[in-house]
Amino acid sequence: MQWFPAAQWLKGYNRSLFTADIIAAIIVTIMLIPQSLAYAMLAGVPPEIGLYASVLPLVAYALFGTSRTLSVGPVAVVSLMTASAVGEAVAKTGADYHQAAILLALLSAVMLIGMGLLRFGFLANFLSHPVVSGFISASGIIIALSQLKHILGVSAQGETLIELTESLWANIMGTNMPTLSIGLFALVFLAWCRAFLGSSLVRLGCSKDLAATLTKTAPVVSIAATIALAYGLDLADQGVSIVGAVPSGLPSLSLPALDWRVIEELWPAALLISIIGYVESISVGRTLGAKRRQRVHPDQELIGLGASNLASALSSGFPVTGGFSRSVVNFDAGAQTPAASIMTAIGIALAAMFLTPVLFFLPKATLAATIIVAVISLVDLSLLKRAWDYSKRDGLALAGTIVITLLAGVEVGVVTGVSLSIFLHLYHTSRPHVAIVGEVPGTQHFRNINRHQVITAPTICSIRIDESLYFPNAAYLEDVVYTEVAKNSELKHVVLMCSAINVIDLSALEALEMINERLTELDIGFHLSEVKGPVMDALVRSHLLQALNGSVYLSQHEAFTQLQTQSEV
Amino acid sequence: MQWFPAAQWLKGYNRSLFTADIIAAIIVTIMLIPQSLAYAMLAGVPPEIGLYASVLPLVAYALFGTSRTLSVGPVAVVSLMTASAVGEAVAKTGADYHQAAILLALLSAVMLIGMGLLRFGFLANFLSHPVVSGFISASGIIIALSQLKHILGVSAQGETLIELTESLWANIMGTNMPTLSIGLFALVFLAWCRAFLGSSLVRLGCSKDLAATLTKTAPVVSIAATIALAYGLDLADQGVSIVGAVPSGLPSLSLPALDWRVIEELWPAALLISIIGYVESISVGRTLGAKRRQRVHPDQELIGLGASNLASALSSGFPVTGGFSRSVVNFDAGAQTPAASIMTAIGIALAAMFLTPVLFFLPKATLAATIIVAVISLVDLSLLKRAWDYSKRDGLALAGTIVITLLAGVEVGVVTGVSLSIFLHLYHTSRPHVAIVGEVPGTQHFRNINRHQVITAPTICSIRIDESLYFPNAAYLEDVVYTEVAKNSELKHVVLMCSAINVIDLSALEALEMINERLTELDIGFHLSEVKGPVMDALVRSHLLQALNGSVYLSQHEAFTQLQTQSEV
Repeated sequence: MQWFPAAQWLKGYNRSLFTADIIAAIIVTIMLIPQSLAYAMLAGVPPEIGLYASVLPLVAYALFGTSRTLSVGPVAVVSLMTASAVGEAVAKTGADYHQAAILLALLSAVMLIGMGLLRFGFLANFLSHPVVSGFISASGIIIALSQLKHILGVSAQGETLIELTESLWANIMGTNMPTLSIGLFALVFLAWCRAFLGSSLVRLGCSKDLAATLTKTAPVVSIAATIALAYGLDLADQGVSIVGAVPSGLPSLSLPALDWRVIEELWPAALLISIIGYVESISVGRTLGAKRRQRVHPDQELIGLGASNLASALSSGFPVTGGFSRSVVNFDAGAQTPAASIMTAIGIALAAMFLTPVLFFLPKATLAATIIVAVISLVDLSLLKRAWDYSKRDGLALAGTIVITLLAGVEVGVVTGVSLSIFLHLYHTSRPHVAIVGEVPGTQHFRNINRHQVITAPTICSIRIDESLYFPNAAYLEDVVYTEVAKNSELKHVVLMCSAINVIDLSALEALEMINERLTELDIGFHLSEVKGPVMDALVRSHLLQALNGSVYLSQHEAFTQLQTQSEV
Repeated sequence: MQWFPAAQWLKGYNRSLFTADIIAAIIVTIMLIPQSLAYAMLAGVPPEIGLYASVLPLVAYALFGTSRTLSVGPVAVVSLMTASAVGEAVAKTGADYHQAAILLALLSAVMLIGMGLLRFGFLANFLSHPVVSGFISASGIIIALSQLKHILGVSAQGETLIELTESLWANIMGTNMPTLSIGLFALVFLAWCRAFLGSSLVRLGCSKDLAATLTKTAPVVSIAATIALAYGLDLADQGVSIVGAVPSGLPSLSLPALDWRVIEELWPAALLISIIGYVESISVGRTLGAKRRQRVHPDQELIGLGASNLASALSSGFPVTGGFSRSVVNFDAGAQTPAASIMTAIGIALAAMFLTPVLFFLPKATLAATIIVAVISLVDLSLLKRAWDYSKRDGLALAGTIVITLLAGVEVGVVTGVSLSIFLHLYHTSRPHVAIVGEVPGTQHFRNINRHQVITAPTICSIRIDESLYFPNAAYLEDVVYTEVAKNSELKHVVLMCSAINVIDLSALEALEMINERLTELDIGFHLSEVKGPVMDALVRSHLLQALNGSVYLSQHEAFTQLQTQSEV
């Protein structure tokens, strides 16, 4: 872990790096302004807060993070989780909404930094790929649905598929036509740009890079166009909801008041937001890092994101993390060092100081359209079929996470998903694949008697268990051995072939001792073969090896040959 | 699963079995009367309820359970959990204590039967040996401590080590000397009988069996003696707390009123009690069954215990399960079939009808002494050293379960213990043992280059991972490969030796695809060897095998030989 990773890139910084960085910074700034405003709306805080959360957090990550090209700031899923957590805490405690959101960022900062200092980066590994994908897809659907009210110009609320649908349905007759027109215009324009603008521009003679860059400016264009429309046609008077007065300038630095009742409500959500944000961010960082053979350091990344959230809380912002789309833009635009993020922060700061007056007439429907088009790309239901085809367990974990997130909300969804994936794994290993093996003629190899033509002996039963022996399968192990013993009355020896056993825990050790005891009573020898080094190291510390009525053989071949000779004598 | 397991033993029932069963029944009845009264006191219900819970539940288990010798009824740990759960629910809802205890038995019955029908017997496997042992030891300590107040004749309460100690300490000056005298007398007498009576009787010429049987009557003797003392010396007038009037007769059959507010409070505890009771019971049943080559059927056992709890709820009782000590007595006394339990039930019913008047003067201190002497034998802290010596993980799970149970109570204790053992397992497998391997000269075996003198090639890196590849170690796998690649600039081929890999889940598959992509960019071949049948079956359903830039070899030897030839060309 490095305490100040920025030292690495700062010392070699030069003019050519600067040129590359500033170009990327300009592109990301243009992209980030609408995103910041939109995700602030999604999180339920005033629009300028989105800008605040895109200034200091970027600088903090540039100094303490380890990815060279990750772009930090408000992101969709974390903003949704913020809205859910803060909404609930405010309902229960009557706290101020914005203050609670700042407090959430602070709690998240403390947790991330704490986990970093404790080197808990490995925690991210417990979120399996199906759980993360399923959670993000389901969140995308919920986010899109939650923004529909702004497109329709009605009020609606809820945190689950059913609540949102019911609420929208109940209010759909109140749809405001001018709002719907603006919303659909923005939606269609943004979706078209995303799908076709790039290739059209290339056909018109643009370079691929320029076409890609111009495509990213679509949200800014839609904002400018709809501001002009709203201003020119006086849409606010026709019931179109607009952003209204946005204060100019930068926030003063301060920490939120520590209201313990609110903290008590917020901390479980803060923990989830920290972990989800971290997982999202580090997977983006890893992917981009791998492309340029740069490494991200899991524990230092926690510190980097923690510093970002602390910076966000200090400047009245809400929880932030590394975002996928804007990091990719940053990378593709040629950003070489985190200096690009610092320059982006300066760009956003300038926007917060000078650009806010023009945002007065910005229709909320435009921001909603920006969000919907962005999150729809997160929804990837095709993985469902791929996962299911590959393994029923992974498919089930993915489907379970999606369904529970949609029906019970983001927090329950992610917790259930993680529990489900762990449970399914344990369940699978609790009934491992077991093969009765025999010797392949002319070799020293032992294979499954059901799949291969092999040599066996009536007095010897060789059992191979294809799983580590530990508590979920300890009882099953006993069942397997006793069943084989019951089948064959001539049996004199049971050999447990341990080639696939990577660990034997205390519960399994007790099971082995029980098996040994019982086989001794039945006058049947109990032997082990092909025990791995680390497993043997543990067994010599136990009582089993002294109590064992049989032997431990280096190879199954040796066991089979020697025991056969013994039986014949 | 058999719907009516009793049919098996009923059809061959004869006079000699009957004789054996009735002798065991008489011994168990004598032992069960004091236990029932004591555990009712521990659970916080009137003493006669303990007797009720030892009549019909025994009959129900005899008809629906699969162990021939298991003795069902009130047990220490489940009674403690009942007191904790019902106490809390009553405090929150103001419900009647006894009614809530009956409701708990009913909920437990519904859950056990439900789990049995769903064949959820495997759930018991998720409680590892260290967790169960630690939980029972810690519960034993808490139970003993909770009974000290009856020995001292003071009032005290609490559910954790600290609460109980503080509460006792605060009230210790109010100790009632006559109570303490009775309590200490009973304690010393019972402890002496348990430790020395058997061997003394044998020395006096008793047969071993008779000595063991007589030892079991000690609690009844202590009850009779202290009743006589309390009556003769008028101890109640001197502040000794006595049981008082116990209604005679049997309960009328009825179901408790379904108060949903209480059910909402009780159900999580009912689930824990069901699982803990089941685990305790089935491990006793398995151990005794193994001695006579009889099998217990995990799923049918759930039905059997569910039927017992339903019978308990029907007869105004509280949660019951199979108890260790009395099942061992039943077994040792020669019980051959569950008919012994039915006869025991008749014995207890007779006691409930005719014996209750003599219990009026029974000092509560005697019952407390019975409990303390019984539970102290559950406390086995020696396992702590054994577990720690064998494996730090198991030691940690055991110590964690003990400490949390002592400090935070039984419910938090068992949940934390299970979570901890699962977490430690996942953590361990998230950084599996990895060996870089080379060929042992003159053989086709590949071993760790750090442990053995082996042949390697500068252009080939063979990595063996001693663990299934799945989400907790998917990221680690990438790290391992990239680190090896970074070490060696001559590298042309990476071979992943899969002999210890029992499963590859979707997360690990994605990691393998990433590794393949990245190695392709670096112009390094990525190969697999010794992939097991079931793993290969899954991989052919995935995209990896088509994308793989290298080959899949049947053996590591084949991979090494062929790749070496290729590199030389």
